[in-house]
Amino acid sequence: MGQNLILNAADHGFTVVAFNRTVSKVDRFLGDEAKGKSIVGAHSIEEFVSMLKKPRRMMMLVMAGKPVDDFIELLLNAGTEKGDIIIDGGNSHYPDTNRRTKYLASKGIRFVGTGVSGGEEGARYGPSIMPGGNEEAWPYIKDVLQSISAKSDGEACCQWVGDDGAGHYVKMVHNGIEYGDMQLITEAYDIMKRGLGMSGKEMGDTFAKWNKGVLDSFLIEITRDIMYFNDDDGTPLLEKIMDSAGQKGTGKWTAINALDLGMPVTLIGEAVFARCLSSLKAERGRACKLLEGPTPDFKGNKQEILDNLEQALYASKIISYAQGFMLIQHAAKEYSWKLNKPEIALMWRGGCIIRSVFLKDITSAYRRDPDLENLLFDDFFNKAIHNAQKGWRDIVSKGALWGIPTPAFSTALSFYDGYRTKDLPANLLQAQRDYFGAHTFRIKPECANEKYPEGKDIHVNWTGRGGNISASTYTA
Amino acid sequence: MGQNLILNAADHGFTVVAFNRTVSKVDRFLGDEAKGKSIVGAHSIEEFVSMLKKPRRMMMLVMAGKPVDDFIELLLNAGTEKGDIIIDGGNSHYPDTNRRTKYLASKGIRFVGTGVSGGEEGARYGPSIMPGGNEEAWPYIKDVLQSISAKSDGEACCQWVGDDGAGHYVKMVHNGIEYGDMQLITEAYDIMKRGLGMSGKEMGDTFAKWNKGVLDSFLIEITRDIMYFNDDDGTPLLEKIMDSAGQKGTGKWTAINALDLGMPVTLIGEAVFARCLSSLKAERGRACKLLEGPTPDFKGNKQEILDNLEQALYASKIISYAQGFMLIQHAAKEYSWKLNKPEIALMWRGGCIIRSVFLKDITSAYRRDPDLENLLFDDFFNKAIHNAQKGWRDIVSKGALWGIPTPAFSTALSFYDGYRTKDLPANLLQAQRDYFGAHTFRIKPECANEKYPEGKDIHVNWTGRGGNISASTYTA
Repeated sequence: MGQNLILNAADHGFTVVAFNRTVSKVDRFLGDEAKGKSIVGAHSIEEFVSMLKKPRRMMMLVMAGKPVDDFIELLLNAGTEKGDIIIDGGNSHYPDTNRRTKYLASKGIRFVGTGVSGGEEGARYGPSIMPGGNEEAWPYIKDVLQSISAKSDGEACCQWVGDDGAGHYVKMVHNGIEYGDMQLITEAYDIMKRGLGMSGKEMGDTFAKWNKGVLDSFLIEITRDIMYFNDDDGTPLLEKIMDSAGQKGTGKWTAINALDLGMPVTLIGEAVFARCLSSLKAERGRACKLLEGPTPDFKGNKQEILDNLEQALYASKIISYAQGFMLIQHAAKEYSWKLNKPEIALMWRGGCIIRSVFLKDITSAYRRDPDLENLLFDDFFNKAIHNAQKGWRDIVSKGALWGIPTPAFSTALSFYDGYRTKDLPANLLQAQRDYFGAHTFRIKPECANEKYPEGKDIHVNWTGRGGNISASTYTA
Repeated sequence: MGQNLILNAADHGFTVVAFNRTVSKVDRFLGDEAKGKSIVGAHSIEEFVSMLKKPRRMMMLVMAGKPVDDFIELLLNAGTEKGDIIIDGGNSHYPDTNRRTKYLASKGIRFVGTGVSGGEEGARYGPSIMPGGNEEAWPYIKDVLQSISAKSDGEACCQWVGDDGAGHYVKMVHNGIEYGDMQLITEAYDIMKRGLGMSGKEMGDTFAKWNKGVLDSFLIEITRDIMYFNDDDGTPLLEKIMDSAGQKGTGKWTAINALDLGMPVTLIGEAVFARCLSSLKAERGRACKLLEGPTPDFKGNKQEILDNLEQALYASKIISYAQGFMLIQHAAKEYSWKLNKPEIALMWRGGCIIRSVFLKDITSAYRRDPDLENLLFDDFFNKAIHNAQKGWRDIVSKGALWGIPTPAFSTALSFYDGYRTKDLPANLLQAQRDYFGAHTFRIKPECANEKYPEGKDIHVNWTGRGGNISASTYTA
């Protein structure tokens, strides 16, 4: 990835110094892909630092965690001077980036932690770049980062995100959303395959069609290709691939952060848990022999179900992005970051794994109203989800009756129905908590009176016994 | 709570020394509830330590976090000697208990962290007690803790859980399960109220009836009482209570731990997120004006829906406990604890918030086969979930069509359907990850051949372009 970013920068007219601790790799690179380009090699970290013009702009791409700290120390001891800029382009966890920004600021070094998304291909020809950290660095690095980044309608998919770990935070949420998008697509595939008995070719045709509509996106496009991809024996390779999904942790970080901030980012949560369940392959092999369920035997109009499925996927995706932006909005408040929602959506429009036409609509929504409280309140998405909901409800209902798991479609619908409910049944939770633990409750403002005033913590003696503490005779 | 545990111990023939840093509280207690009982007071921490016989058995009930560390230091400096026993009976996070057990062992002190559940009433007349830590302490404290604990069919709801933080860990999962049980009940309430238009009295009657069947439990019992509880104006108080649920963090800890261990404990996750959503009361107030959905208008046979609802609640509860025990089982492996599943179920049978007849069945299942891989594989629960699934599927389907959120019912069903599926659609996730990031995949053993051998990490050139790295032309 580092090599591809260097080649990308060189193509845009920058002269780049390349360094790797395995010095032979530098020479191989210079003699091969870098030949004839404005790329020079350094054979020691001291040489690397000495060759750069000041303030030095040094970007590292090493494994997240201790290697980043170690490399920072190496740079500090190799002649780095006050005012120099160090950029971490790896998948660091944002609290580490918070810490490193402060630590390096105390030494006069401007630190930037940036998310880079798009894989190897993106790095080479235009990734999505999400930089945050010490804003003093931005004027010095803006030109090069925006030059090498993806463009969407002529705008660079690289904007300053915010202080400290804000860039890596936004990249983390991006990855969580990526987990969600992928999970939604697998659920659609499962309904097509097991619910409707479709072939790889038929499914490929469906994804090809969807890729021309509201779902038009990189992930739908590659899913189409995967459906069409046959093994040497002429059958789809996909069906031979082990259904045990890996994960590298960023989806999990997003779900944990949502729990910590108390934000209901349920779709990413379910997507992460679905990967966990998939990895229990051997146990499922035993479970499938012992646990029964219905066998789908659909005889009706397939196209109608496919249309509903497209709506279910679209509506669930709207929910997932609404939840993701709710999280970002809340994090901005919690961590005192000035996060700019239209620009975040813009950065995700091109270059990265979740790039899509959909993100263009999100960018427009937040440009129309940067203070938009929730994506669902925007006219475009409001209409979209209203149009989609009939099909969406049908698919969730059919999944339950057919015995095909739809954790992400379902949780998205439950969120929608919960979010649009003025009075949720959580009043019962509060009554229960007051009953068994005297945790108190509040009264609905419209029901407040002298006995139960608004805004007061109220405890009731539910049993007529006890006093401050409620009780029950229940014995199991 | 501390006072109630002291009174409880005194009632069981133990002489107890009471101490509180607010000395006036000790005197008030001695002159009031403790009068005439085998309880003596200490007016300083040094006096407290000096009055105990050796090895000293000292139990503290202070707020989790720093206060526990502070109180431990106070005890260490007040004459505590090698061999003494310190018991933390608060809601400490298990990693803190891990740390404290090691720290105190290095000073020759035996530390025990114990979960205590049952609220004030439980503490007074018999709580569920879940002790773990330094097992050397157990012979010295077993008698008193088992005496004061709840009993279930004559067995003490207090058994040694395991090393280090194992006791607090099991208490944490208990609390997570409590979140799940409560969420399931609120979803049933919502279906009754908004779906079927039932009155408080009718709902109370239903919970009363359920409390005589498989759902017989403390939480169903108090829900019945809450449904019947009218305000002075003769209408249910419940409907006046604010639907914004509080939480103290243990449910969240369980969900985070599940994510960290990679175990799909989805029901607790959704229960925590449902509380988060409930707390966005003001935002929901705005959302309900902008987001539309169906209006339930049920005209059929109510009793049939209620029977299905009972099955949905029962089946979802089975899933929740199966997930909870999957987590415990995995944690035991991960943290090298010897956790005894029948005894954990026994401890939860009486005294605590989740006490129920249901836990008797779980105890029996694990006693029949302590190595039972999954609760769903036990004959009793296997039959139970098979019998319940028709009704369960109907409710999840109706919730989706009626626009009533059922996040916990739905996630439980998706888990069941995923868990019993030999080949999940996660093969597509792996294909996608290999396509965009060359993350590689494995081949299903039954599809392995020379080109795609079993157990090897395989990468495919999906596009026919590139080589090691796949690519796509998609531009948004």
